[in-house]
Amino acid sequence: MGKTAITPTREENFPEWYQQVVKQGELAQSSFVRGCMVIKPWGYSLWEKMKTVLDKEFKKHDVENAYFPLFIPLRFFAKEAKHVEGFAKECAVVTHQRLEEKDGQLVPADPLDEPLIVRPTSETIIGETFAQWIESYRDLPLKINQWCNIVRFEMRTRLFLRTTEILWQEGHTAHASYDEALQMAKEMLEVYATFAKEYLAMPLIAGKKTENEKFPGAEITYALEGMMQDKKALQAGTSHFFAQNFSKVQNIQFSDEEGNLQFAYTTSWGVTTRLVGALVMVHGDDNGLVIPPRIAPLHLVILPILHKPEFREKILKHCEELKQELEGIHYHGCPLEVKIDQRDLRGGEKLWSWVKKGVPMILEIGPKDLETQSITFLRRDLDKKEQITKAQFLSSVTSYLDEMQENIYKRAKDLLDSHTFDVHSKEELMTALKKPGFYRCFLKDDPKIEEELKEWQLTVRCIPFDQPKTGGRCILSNEENCQRVIVAKAY
Amino acid sequence: MGKTAITPTREENFPEWYQQVVKQGELAQSSFVRGCMVIKPWGYSLWEKMKTVLDKEFKKHDVENAYFPLFIPLRFFAKEAKHVEGFAKECAVVTHQRLEEKDGQLVPADPLDEPLIVRPTSETIIGETFAQWIESYRDLPLKINQWCNIVRFEMRTRLFLRTTEILWQEGHTAHASYDEALQMAKEMLEVYATFAKEYLAMPLIAGKKTENEKFPGAEITYALEGMMQDKKALQAGTSHFFAQNFSKVQNIQFSDEEGNLQFAYTTSWGVTTRLVGALVMVHGDDNGLVIPPRIAPLHLVILPILHKPEFREKILKHCEELKQELEGIHYHGCPLEVKIDQRDLRGGEKLWSWVKKGVPMILEIGPKDLETQSITFLRRDLDKKEQITKAQFLSSVTSYLDEMQENIYKRAKDLLDSHTFDVHSKEELMTALKKPGFYRCFLKDDPKIEEELKEWQLTVRCIPFDQPKTGGRCILSNEENCQRVIVAKAY
Repeated sequence: MGKTAITPTREENFPEWYQQVVKQGELAQSSFVRGCMVIKPWGYSLWEKMKTVLDKEFKKHDVENAYFPLFIPLRFFAKEAKHVEGFAKECAVVTHQRLEEKDGQLVPADPLDEPLIVRPTSETIIGETFAQWIESYRDLPLKINQWCNIVRFEMRTRLFLRTTEILWQEGHTAHASYDEALQMAKEMLEVYATFAKEYLAMPLIAGKKTENEKFPGAEITYALEGMMQDKKALQAGTSHFFAQNFSKVQNIQFSDEEGNLQFAYTTSWGVTTRLVGALVMVHGDDNGLVIPPRIAPLHLVILPILHKPEFREKILKHCEELKQELEGIHYHGCPLEVKIDQRDLRGGEKLWSWVKKGVPMILEIGPKDLETQSITFLRRDLDKKEQITKAQFLSSVTSYLDEMQENIYKRAKDLLDSHTFDVHSKEELMTALKKPGFYRCFLKDDPKIEEELKEWQLTVRCIPFDQPKTGGRCILSNEENCQRVIVAKAY
Repeated sequence: MGKTAITPTREENFPEWYQQVVKQGELAQSSFVRGCMVIKPWGYSLWEKMKTVLDKEFKKHDVENAYFPLFIPLRFFAKEAKHVEGFAKECAVVTHQRLEEKDGQLVPADPLDEPLIVRPTSETIIGETFAQWIESYRDLPLKINQWCNIVRFEMRTRLFLRTTEILWQEGHTAHASYDEALQMAKEMLEVYATFAKEYLAMPLIAGKKTENEKFPGAEITYALEGMMQDKKALQAGTSHFFAQNFSKVQNIQFSDEEGNLQFAYTTSWGVTTRLVGALVMVHGDDNGLVIPPRIAPLHLVILPILHKPEFREKILKHCEELKQELEGIHYHGCPLEVKIDQRDLRGGEKLWSWVKKGVPMILEIGPKDLETQSITFLRRDLDKKEQITKAQFLSSVTSYLDEMQENIYKRAKDLLDSHTFDVHSKEELMTALKKPGFYRCFLKDDPKIEEELKEWQLTVRCIPFDQPKTGGRCILSNEENCQRVIVAKAY
């Protein structure tokens, strides 16, 4: 296929390559509102597919969906000190409830008695509601999730990765015991990790955030970190254990079996449309997006080659039959999703539009394929077209998709493994920095130590669950018995 | 079942009965933010089910989902004069992007250069985006839908019926011709009407709004009106034809086949969580909600009767088997949704909780049912328990559900028909007003005439598509050749 569809290439300019893939893959665009994006149909269908899979998983964990208000009264927001500190710098504040004309201009009118915050996350409002719902241990555990939009004003925004408005899900649970809540927070991180691996073909590192990096108000924040193709880290999902931090300020109490009032233990966990950006940066190539088959809204696109009018009818009929045969095939429990693209475009342009969108398999059907009952196809993760008989194709199409899923997972895993470097001293870190990647080292969990890392634009991404048996010496403070962490540049 | 589960009854106090059904059916509750509600899991599952069905229908009409920003810049909002007039009185205005502490209090800080409006509807922002997307006739028709939240500050709010934040879908389309766009607006109203009839078991009157009642900025608004059990009208869905009203202010232009620039014709159409409120008010009875089987998130609940410990294991096993057998049965293309309720509650309390939630069928399985291989069940629309053999039950369960669906539709249709009164003069209207209902009469489409109706708290609900061959004399102005309208008190 020679020349690449995306300019610049990843090698030449990764950030600009990313913008181009998002644009040319028709995933999203900037809107007229600073930092807010328009998610285009193709990008939105990816998010919908993720939602469908995750929602089913949540329900297996007895989580129920509900919906809470977009607005949070200022007084609720202010209750948890660290929480307000963490979010006050970037929240949208509604102060008026009407517009009026003044000197020919529309201006805000009717100030609200109390300003409303557009939710940057819903711990505060959901917790206050939990306090009403929970009376006794019989009401626990309470497991609620909502799919919604949140707003955090950001200085520098990038489509999907950092936007002012974000679509996400936020799960919130309350439990009778410390252990059960802690277990829940870990379990949901595991749900995300399995989803990322099996559907998004993304190898992620699971671990705990440092004191410095944890969610405002959390006792422990668990997180998943992925390596993008520029070797920078991206946080792909988080799960927070709050212990009684929120329940004490929100009065989430229950009477236990002995009739004593206790504070509940709560958690929250979420993933966002950021996952779409991660998908681009983990699997995309210089021809655009590459979608893992198991999360693809569309598995196959059929392109009828119609430039010879005498074959037109026959070819279209053949394509329609092929589509129906393919839709009769199940792939991991669901029928294959197939589309025939009859748009009036030059063949090359049409092919490239689907290559850039990352559809796993693209089929071309022309007069010759009709005659020989064969199929010419392109598997998106490979670099060449193949031609085989239709019968062969139908019997092996799901294997091709599984192979592709495995292949792109392996590519991503190889990148992660080959760019994770063990460093044992500050000097080794300095040398290692010449090669971009994840640096694995012992480090003290101390905000002051992490401050030092800023000098090299590094942050501690997580303290992986995967730890050596004994602790080690902090590469910056030389203190003993520290945990091993992953340090990297990050989005 | 004697005493009713809901106090007061519909007869005694309809508005309060409504609040009680919503509360005791665990559909929703007021939140801490004025006019915003918390949609509880059972209420949300109803909305999710409606979403699933409608989304599939939209896709059959080649509509694609996408997502546009929550915020609208003030200048966009101000472009269409009638539109701003219609919405300026009730919109949430974001003026600040940060909070800061001042004298120990959190206060809004960092005013935005331009205030942002929280979308009350998205014609403005979606239209501006369409203007970017559309270049030639080849890009048309463009059919986009979004599922999202909107905000309209309301003075008097009621759960589901009138809330400050609303969940809804809004479809937006652009077309090359007047006729095609008009056709689209009508088609989508038809989609809603069919959905309401077949799934919600709601008979609705389809028609056009008067000049006075139409959507701000619309050329024509089509609407569906339903009769609640207090005989008041509720608008259940609308579809707007904008002609070129928005495309001219938003510059939505395309080059036609001859290369001439033309303004596109646009439409929009939506339904909201209000439909959940309508469901309550159309089908609910003095024991709570009654959910039409085809929209029920759960078709059957099995209540094992466990007070005799020696039967406990056997009964639970029997219930589990029954559940699996039922889940193997398809109802309109999907497996039956079944739940076993093992909560540690008194039998009566448990039964009533599901009655109030409106689950179509409730099964009780005790030692005797086990012995005789029979099933005792309650069909929610009827007033008595029945006992039949398990084999009989399994073979007729879907017929029971279909019968229930038909039965509650018929009940609603009978109410509508028996409370729609033809009136031929102002005097007849005055007499008719003693019986609450819909008043069908000839009326001039003139805001001044409609103003008169306010005296009796009446509004023109719609000009039904179903019209006599010739027009008639306006009952208020005596003008000839007027259309027939439906006049009623409304929510």
